[in-house]
Amino acid sequence: MIRPGAKQYVVARPLYSDESFAEEHVKVYRQRKSMLEHVKQYFTCDSKRAKNAALSLLPVIGWLRMYRIKEWLFSDIVSGISTGLVAVLQGLAYCLLASLPAWYGLFSAFFPVVIYFFLGTSRHISVGPFPVLCLMIGSVVTRLVPDIGPPHNIPGFEGLTIDQQRVLVASSVTFLTGIMQLAMGIFQVGFVVMYLSDTLVSGFTTAAAIHILVSQLKFVLGLQVPGLSGPLSIIYTLEDIFTQITKTNICDVVISVVIMVVVFIVKEINDRYKSKLPVPIPIEVIMTVIACGVSYGFDFKTKYGIDTVGHIPKGYESPMAPNLHIFQETAVEAFPMAIVGFAVAFSVAKVYSVKHDYTIDGNQELIAFGVSNIFGASFKSFAASTALSRSAVQESTGGKTQLAGLLSAIIVMIVTLAIGFLLDPLPKSVLGAVVIVNLKGMLMQFREVPYLFRRDKPDCVVWLGTCLASILLGLDLGLAAGLGIELISVVLRAQFPRCSVLANIKGTDIYKDKKDYTDIYEPEGVKIFRIPSPIFFANIEFFRSKLVEAVGFNPLRILRKRNKALRMIRKLLKRGDLQWTSKGFLNTSSGPIREAEDESNMEELDLPTDFKDFPARIDWNAELPANIVVPQVDVHSLILDFAAVSFLDISALKGLKMALKELIRVEVEVYIVACDPYILEKLHDCCFFDDEVQPSMFFLTLHDAMLHILDKHPESTENKSGMIMTSVTVHNHGGSLRSRDRNAPEPETKF
Amino acid sequence: MIRPGAKQYVVARPLYSDESFAEEHVKVYRQRKSMLEHVKQYFTCDSKRAKNAALSLLPVIGWLRMYRIKEWLFSDIVSGISTGLVAVLQGLAYCLLASLPAWYGLFSAFFPVVIYFFLGTSRHISVGPFPVLCLMIGSVVTRLVPDIGPPHNIPGFEGLTIDQQRVLVASSVTFLTGIMQLAMGIFQVGFVVMYLSDTLVSGFTTAAAIHILVSQLKFVLGLQVPGLSGPLSIIYTLEDIFTQITKTNICDVVISVVIMVVVFIVKEINDRYKSKLPVPIPIEVIMTVIACGVSYGFDFKTKYGIDTVGHIPKGYESPMAPNLHIFQETAVEAFPMAIVGFAVAFSVAKVYSVKHDYTIDGNQELIAFGVSNIFGASFKSFAASTALSRSAVQESTGGKTQLAGLLSAIIVMIVTLAIGFLLDPLPKSVLGAVVIVNLKGMLMQFREVPYLFRRDKPDCVVWLGTCLASILLGLDLGLAAGLGIELISVVLRAQFPRCSVLANIKGTDIYKDKKDYTDIYEPEGVKIFRIPSPIFFANIEFFRSKLVEAVGFNPLRILRKRNKALRMIRKLLKRGDLQWTSKGFLNTSSGPIREAEDESNMEELDLPTDFKDFPARIDWNAELPANIVVPQVDVHSLILDFAAVSFLDISALKGLKMALKELIRVEVEVYIVACDPYILEKLHDCCFFDDEVQPSMFFLTLHDAMLHILDKHPESTENKSGMIMTSVTVHNHGGSLRSRDRNAPEPETKF
Repeated sequence: MIRPGAKQYVVARPLYSDESFAEEHVKVYRQRKSMLEHVKQYFTCDSKRAKNAALSLLPVIGWLRMYRIKEWLFSDIVSGISTGLVAVLQGLAYCLLASLPAWYGLFSAFFPVVIYFFLGTSRHISVGPFPVLCLMIGSVVTRLVPDIGPPHNIPGFEGLTIDQQRVLVASSVTFLTGIMQLAMGIFQVGFVVMYLSDTLVSGFTTAAAIHILVSQLKFVLGLQVPGLSGPLSIIYTLEDIFTQITKTNICDVVISVVIMVVVFIVKEINDRYKSKLPVPIPIEVIMTVIACGVSYGFDFKTKYGIDTVGHIPKGYESPMAPNLHIFQETAVEAFPMAIVGFAVAFSVAKVYSVKHDYTIDGNQELIAFGVSNIFGASFKSFAASTALSRSAVQESTGGKTQLAGLLSAIIVMIVTLAIGFLLDPLPKSVLGAVVIVNLKGMLMQFREVPYLFRRDKPDCVVWLGTCLASILLGLDLGLAAGLGIELISVVLRAQFPRCSVLANIKGTDIYKDKKDYTDIYEPEGVKIFRIPSPIFFANIEFFRSKLVEAVGFNPLRILRKRNKALRMIRKLLKRGDLQWTSKGFLNTSSGPIREAEDESNMEELDLPTDFKDFPARIDWNAELPANIVVPQVDVHSLILDFAAVSFLDISALKGLKMALKELIRVEVEVYIVACDPYILEKLHDCCFFDDEVQPSMFFLTLHDAMLHILDKHPESTENKSGMIMTSVTVHNHGGSLRSRDRNAPEPETKF
Repeated sequence: MIRPGAKQYVVARPLYSDESFAEEHVKVYRQRKSMLEHVKQYFTCDSKRAKNAALSLLPVIGWLRMYRIKEWLFSDIVSGISTGLVAVLQGLAYCLLASLPAWYGLFSAFFPVVIYFFLGTSRHISVGPFPVLCLMIGSVVTRLVPDIGPPHNIPGFEGLTIDQQRVLVASSVTFLTGIMQLAMGIFQVGFVVMYLSDTLVSGFTTAAAIHILVSQLKFVLGLQVPGLSGPLSIIYTLEDIFTQITKTNICDVVISVVIMVVVFIVKEINDRYKSKLPVPIPIEVIMTVIACGVSYGFDFKTKYGIDTVGHIPKGYESPMAPNLHIFQETAVEAFPMAIVGFAVAFSVAKVYSVKHDYTIDGNQELIAFGVSNIFGASFKSFAASTALSRSAVQESTGGKTQLAGLLSAIIVMIVTLAIGFLLDPLPKSVLGAVVIVNLKGMLMQFREVPYLFRRDKPDCVVWLGTCLASILLGLDLGLAAGLGIELISVVLRAQFPRCSVLANIKGTDIYKDKKDYTDIYEPEGVKIFRIPSPIFFANIEFFRSKLVEAVGFNPLRILRKRNKALRMIRKLLKRGDLQWTSKGFLNTSSGPIREAEDESNMEELDLPTDFKDFPARIDWNAELPANIVVPQVDVHSLILDFAAVSFLDISALKGLKMALKELIRVEVEVYIVACDPYILEKLHDCCFFDDEVQPSMFFLTLHDAMLHILDKHPESTENKSGMIMTSVTVHNHGGSLRSRDRNAPEPETKF
């Protein structure tokens, strides 16, 4: 078997059960902190901690102190101006998604950015409107203040115009979102975004892209379609659009198509010659300026009846308190908004933090976005996150710190305060076209489906489920449904493990799936069962049924039959039909013995077989007297390979204990090997062990247990010389190591 | 180290990587069925399959053929009569929970039982009203037809009395529940009840018991309190009760207390002398009969103003079609009812099936309950499941088959058709008292909380979360919330695994947590990292950060620093400030070399270090020329112990691959050991491997990989003689096995 020149694996050590190993190798006592001590430590305060806390709450102090004016300032200015132009355009465009007058988008591109400058830990993201979030706000807005019909009955709506009501709703829900984010940040639960896997986010944003596409169709076609919300609203919206399709404004369509084509092509060029262009061509801004000019010059609004942005009032509006009744109405919707807004910003920020090698702090980011939104909402801006495309502009044009962000906010401010009127003639279809072109990246995520289908079916189901649910049920319910599917997918992966029966690869200490190899050897009476997953409530029954399959009999049934047989024998002995001799039972009755089944005391049949009034134990595999038949059990030892069992819950503990007891009661010795030390500790803590289930059943490795069994049951290997590297007993002869040979040839080996 | 007399573990075999093992031991090719073949096989039909299908659809055929008339019939009759009496009483009582006139409960104890007789696979459960399910129906009924105010606007309600409307709602929702159960049975998805863990069900039923208790208070106190439903309804109900507490009917309270005390005591006696009593004392039935007589004799109704059951019409009512509008309104509530009803019945049935050693079929049970409910609903009965107490009566009085169930239904029928009027004077407070006494078992489940708290915190959280949510939000939302918490608990268990760094127990092939033992040895430059859980989206980041912590450096940062240094060296070479000699670099410039950082082409820094224009590779741990400093890396090999990794998802695959690449690019050799063969297969399928990440990194065991490393890096063990059982190379000398010694003494060993 041994190839010349190959490396050898030689080991000689004592045979270890977990107990004997613990005796020889004393574990270092490691004190674990209790929950209370953790809390105490968390709230301990000294000057250093206070300073660190202040610094981590105001990251701006940290990075401003090390600002390299010479190297960074110029890039930040260039980046700030480019980002600012894009921010103005996107602010106006994404505001249409939120069903609000366009200029409120400019507020959202200003107030949150200023706060984030002080509190944010990412240096490269461009804070401001995020299309998906805008759409979620839009669905709340149109639910409470629909286009057609009366608004919701909310105190505080009286005397407001429909647009004012909508702004009130949007800023109130933004305020609530901010409170939620701030609370999550303070309670350090930012880790919840971990549950939004890439697959889930991809499916979700693809669905959002489709929603956005549908919502922009009306601007591109120049139609008047009321905004809808709630489950299936996308279908009703499409229905509305198609019934009106004949009223399409040709001029709008032409403008949109031209803009989409030009922007699409130039963006492709930007992408392709990324390394050669010093700064990507700001084609959207250029096209918008041109469209604005053309629209003004030819008076599109009156000539072709095109819907334009309209009068943009100069300056900011006075701050406003949020409406508590709206809080109540929108609490359920604000939560997914808080999660989505933060999750997207955080994932974008993470990408840049890895690229530029600095750390960002999830909980501080939550605080930053929370405060930004609370502050912004007071000034009628709506929920901010980040748009991937805008952040890409900020980073690729050389932005080094949030100073670029602050500069972009100043550009937006200039537009609001001074030159906003220039945008009045801008057709809404231009904004719609810009939004649609920017969906390319999100829609391209559809390409992941075949990829996922080939690689990992459950992930594919999560993607499709999330996407479909989000399209049909709306983004908030869809996200919840997606999360549910995703959690179930994790449980499912562990729920139907491929349990296998292992056997020994001849001449080694290696055990592999019995069905996979031909040169494999299973000692008689020994079964090795491998559980390749954690055990918990959802798979404990599955595992038990697979175990019964593997050992080849139902231990409980065997136990009951044995106990019944015992009861019968006891009765016969009492009646004198049977006698106990030194050679075994002697049948003293002449005729065949028949007895009605005794159905009383069913519970007793499940107890361990009790031989205490018998002169000796009965060998159940031998022939029994009086034609009593009990199924034979040909397994004397069972090894459970726990190497891959990473946790056990209470249901699993109970089920496992019951399964072990049943086996032990039919005289099968059970061994558990390669058990994680923490699980073993937990078993001790949970009173898993008793008279029948004992800690001595734990062995370090499969081979240790197997050697132990072969030593105990030498008949298992008889006539199978050399099949397994058998154990050897050491006799101490003056320090040299001499081992008793079993069946192997005698090589000269040094080790 | 080796104790005399102790058993030894001796192994000598070739050193195996996964690849070399696969070369020597060819895997048997096992054809796996594709999804299509499974579907094909499922739909294959031959006469045998058809017969089996018929038999499994009508289990009655099976057990009636082997019915032992002599032994079983008498017990079945006794059991049937006892169960029938209890069923009448419970039918009336539980009907109050459903907010319906009491006699409809008798229908529910009749129609479903008859159908279950034919279709059910359990021989011992008593089908009929189940209090929790009744309460869920009650909450739907009071939502659509409230006590106060107009009913919901549903076509079909016109011209009906309030009770008729309620019966219509109850039977429609029962019909829908039946359809859902039937569909689940047909599509073989009965396994979903696996997700209802014992802990979840315990918390849920405890909450249900509290709801039931509160709902019965009004009957016990003789108050008129409108039934409420929806979140927090329990609090409003309690508020209603306490504001009316002065109007309590003393007579009702006295009757209730007397009945509760007597029933409670006798039930305790039944329990304690279970083995001695031939049949448990039917104390509820006795007390009801007495109360009925007393109430009639003293005319409680007119004298004390007690609310009685009232006129029970004789006979059955004509069948009725369900209302489709109610289907729409109640679809969300019918689903948890379908699940709960089935799950409870199935778990009770399973207990008896294990006890009496027969098999039950979950999907057939779903079909049976589905058809029972559809059929029952057509005759105005409401959703059936099983009550634990009634099933216990049926089994403990000797019931052997569903013949006992059928007989109990006949008793109920007799009451309906003939002697129902006798129950007219029965006070409702008696029924309330009986319901409350029967809650004892469910409420006692509170004792599980301290038990769970000590054993398993996550399970305790699931229990408390489910219970609280079900109490406060109502049973349907509470069940959903509980399921969510439970699924998250599974994810959480796997999410924060206790990763550990392993090291070698001296003189063995055993590796344990480095921090746990003192006599442990870690070869220089080798790190062993153990991941004790599956890897998936929620913990891949955690795992990567722990890995960085374990190896002690951030590989990506090192790689970038090296690439920057390389760029610098290349520049200096070009400028002639540096020269390459056979001894290494020669600094030819006199002054110190300073260079501004080059920030272009950041992406290039993440690529593998490229030495192709250098005469030799640079040793990064040696001193570099021109004062260039790169952090030293003192790890040359990393072993990842994958023994407990039971699955990987796509996020984990991507993250793992990236982590491996980063390590490989800084010249750390990565080995993965003890990887599950299915995971390895999946890695191959998913194109995990490329030029850098290669399948040769997989080794069979930790010790195999370690021996391989020590052979490759002999410096790791220098001056550490005997620390690890080192590998030996075999030279073939005429068939005998001679091994090259490394550091060990020379014992004479045979193996």
